[in-house]
Amino acid sequence: MNYRMIIYILGKIMLIGSAVLIPPLAVSFIYGDGCHWAFLIAIAVFLILGTAAFFPPKKKELFAREGLMIVAIAWILFSIVGGLPFFISREIPSFVDCFFETVSGFTTTGSTILADVESMSKSLLFWRSFTHWIGGMGVLVFAMAIFAQKDVRTTHIMRAEMPGPKIGKLVSKWQFSIRILYGIYIALTVAEFILLLFGGMGVYDSLVHTFGTAGTGGFGVKNSSIGYYNSAYIDYVIGIFMILFGINFNIYYLLIARKFIQVVRSDELKTYIGIVVTATVLIAINVTNQYSNFAEAFRYSFFQVSSIITTTGYATADFNMWPVFSQIILIILMFTGSCAGSTGGGIKIVRISILVKTALREIKKTISPKSVVSVKSDGKSLDREAVSGVGAYFIVYMLVLLLSVLLVSLDKADITTTVTSVIATLNNVGPGLGAVGPTGNFSDFSILSKLILSLDMLAGRLELYPVLMLFTSAAWKKS
Amino acid sequence: MNYRMIIYILGKIMLIGSAVLIPPLAVSFIYGDGCHWAFLIAIAVFLILGTAAFFPPKKKELFAREGLMIVAIAWILFSIVGGLPFFISREIPSFVDCFFETVSGFTTTGSTILADVESMSKSLLFWRSFTHWIGGMGVLVFAMAIFAQKDVRTTHIMRAEMPGPKIGKLVSKWQFSIRILYGIYIALTVAEFILLLFGGMGVYDSLVHTFGTAGTGGFGVKNSSIGYYNSAYIDYVIGIFMILFGINFNIYYLLIARKFIQVVRSDELKTYIGIVVTATVLIAINVTNQYSNFAEAFRYSFFQVSSIITTTGYATADFNMWPVFSQIILIILMFTGSCAGSTGGGIKIVRISILVKTALREIKKTISPKSVVSVKSDGKSLDREAVSGVGAYFIVYMLVLLLSVLLVSLDKADITTTVTSVIATLNNVGPGLGAVGPTGNFSDFSILSKLILSLDMLAGRLELYPVLMLFTSAAWKKS
Repeated sequence: MNYRMIIYILGKIMLIGSAVLIPPLAVSFIYGDGCHWAFLIAIAVFLILGTAAFFPPKKKELFAREGLMIVAIAWILFSIVGGLPFFISREIPSFVDCFFETVSGFTTTGSTILADVESMSKSLLFWRSFTHWIGGMGVLVFAMAIFAQKDVRTTHIMRAEMPGPKIGKLVSKWQFSIRILYGIYIALTVAEFILLLFGGMGVYDSLVHTFGTAGTGGFGVKNSSIGYYNSAYIDYVIGIFMILFGINFNIYYLLIARKFIQVVRSDELKTYIGIVVTATVLIAINVTNQYSNFAEAFRYSFFQVSSIITTTGYATADFNMWPVFSQIILIILMFTGSCAGSTGGGIKIVRISILVKTALREIKKTISPKSVVSVKSDGKSLDREAVSGVGAYFIVYMLVLLLSVLLVSLDKADITTTVTSVIATLNNVGPGLGAVGPTGNFSDFSILSKLILSLDMLAGRLELYPVLMLFTSAAWKKS
Repeated sequence: MNYRMIIYILGKIMLIGSAVLIPPLAVSFIYGDGCHWAFLIAIAVFLILGTAAFFPPKKKELFAREGLMIVAIAWILFSIVGGLPFFISREIPSFVDCFFETVSGFTTTGSTILADVESMSKSLLFWRSFTHWIGGMGVLVFAMAIFAQKDVRTTHIMRAEMPGPKIGKLVSKWQFSIRILYGIYIALTVAEFILLLFGGMGVYDSLVHTFGTAGTGGFGVKNSSIGYYNSAYIDYVIGIFMILFGINFNIYYLLIARKFIQVVRSDELKTYIGIVVTATVLIAINVTNQYSNFAEAFRYSFFQVSSIITTTGYATADFNMWPVFSQIILIILMFTGSCAGSTGGGIKIVRISILVKTALREIKKTISPKSVVSVKSDGKSLDREAVSGVGAYFIVYMLVLLLSVLLVSLDKADITTTVTSVIATLNNVGPGLGAVGPTGNFSDFSILSKLILSLDMLAGRLELYPVLMLFTSAAWKKS
């Protein structure tokens, strides 16, 4: 481990952190809510940590290990320092709660410990939602865009940071591809913001909800989430934009490059849309007698499906009240998540479909032992390495899930709350069922459980390995 | 598919079915409970179906496909005809319930639709438990021992029938190895029966509970299961024998052959014992304040751990009342199950440990990409084929689980009941949590759910593929 290099790069990332706090500081001045000191102190802490960026080490080698380590530590530091404004302003008295809330923000999870969001200061709520937007495309991808270095080092960090197993290089140079990604991200953000304004939501509310949608995070400013606005127009705008932010950004690049055939051939996109349509229709039929007509049931069903599959977590209905069949579908969607290379979380549809295809192949092989059936994705055969990598990922995933459930179960919440709290955080969804359902929150958990669930959010967001690495001895040995 | 050959072999197996009904018929005459007609009719049906055994086909080729098919259909036919005595005697009025109960018996699951076991006739309860004993070592292995044919055909059926992925050939000839297996099985059965008699349980009760233990089934004759006897001696005898029947029978063969080094080297045995000890201690600590002292907590903890990990399902305590932490441990044990090559169900410890080892290797590879770490079992490296086979098995398993949960959830039971009813049947455990907990039963489910749960019991017992095959078009095409 090249620790000096790790510290140097972390220093650079901390400087980004100080810049990111300027917008909420401005909001604080605009509304005069008195929270500006809280932001200024956090900015100062980021700047002090950022001094490490002014002492470049002699040995500049970076390997995958260092990349993973930088990613994990950067997210944890961002969450600690980024949580300071909540703590200093005393609006969230417990520091662990501040940490949980900020991890939830940066990992675009949206799980909250706040029972009454509406009592918070405007600038703090702005900051809370802004962390989603920053987290959405990855703080480190963001850092890369500014501090991009023209050598192999950056790709190591990128690989561990970029969501999903196959975003690939959009174009040959990272710096260029990051600009395109951000161009698309900002364009979609602006489009949603304008459409929400058009729906009469107001500048502040439109902005925070756009941040929450773009990062597929789910923090809002109303206790009843998007349900507060009670508008079919707003439901459909946010519902559709959640779906759009859950699509692999590669698809948008292909659209810009007019490579429509490749878009149409995308197995992941087709599966994603297929799942959304199927789940929406099944739930709409299942809940239709709880609403005045099928159109209304469809509206609520579509919003919740869109919110859960993209792991956003906004709510317009309390799905704790829905039939178990609908709840089970939503739990399954929490696991599948959206497309790789999007801001959404979960296991990712491309992985799920590789797993399902592998399973079907295995059944075929058992029935006709002589047949050779390869696993294909987008028309191309996948090599064994890729298939077994996905299988192993799934198993590690289940082990993390099990261990977390076991530890959180010491808290004596009921079994549904216990299990879904882990599912909702590990998949970066936000709300679960039971006490952590759409109208509940995570405040009743013990400090231990809150830390475990925070680690789950980080592990889920960073595709497991960077966080798991922190627990291995190899991470703490000098090479 | 060589259908004529399939029918011919099924005919032979049906003749076994008629023989298996003689002991309960005898019990009926002994107690004079009037159920003899019910058994005689079922015997007649088995004999009629058995006439197929008198028309051998010309083409005698059998492949794995035919083997899988024979296994699946034989278990279903056994459960249909074997359920007739309950139906004819009118003690279980619904035929679907009779089928469910008999599937549960032959698959050694132990899930019941009976709210009041004690109101049933003695001979019917004897038959119900006897199906566990027969099912335990496999109706088809049983059939093999009698109709053993000295050619390659038998091994095809054996492979699909023998529980677990690696029982291997105990000795080179199947016929000989079946005799040894049965020798061990019967010896253990007799030992437990005598020890229970010695504990004052009475001949009839000792016999049925020994059947339930040997098959790791769990059907009893008291509404409060083994808890009825309220005896530490009985709890420990049954608890230890459940553990013994959950051990790979290969181990007993090695002990008889005095190959002690190989026994000590068995990773699966060590892991199995390690899990039992760890789970027992953790639960004992967790529930200790619900009992008068630690020794009592340990006794109930050990019994429940032993009962669940071996997928037997006997109960001495209502673990619905235990803390969530203990419940989660029990749910995890339902999945791991016991050793391959035993009468227990579940995913099997050898598979779980291969999965965990694979996952750990993947973490190592990500951290140090150049390292080559192979997955070992019993000191030998496993080839990729074996590892990916286990991975695929696990995924198919999870898919069957998910689909079943989804379909059963249409019944509107609460979420814990819905999910654990599938877990308990697919893993051949018996009781779950909630309404299907140790004091509950499966009678409230719809006919659809009962049929799905029956298929889950069969799929779990037959290592998935034979049952899944029935749903493929390949199974119903002429070759």
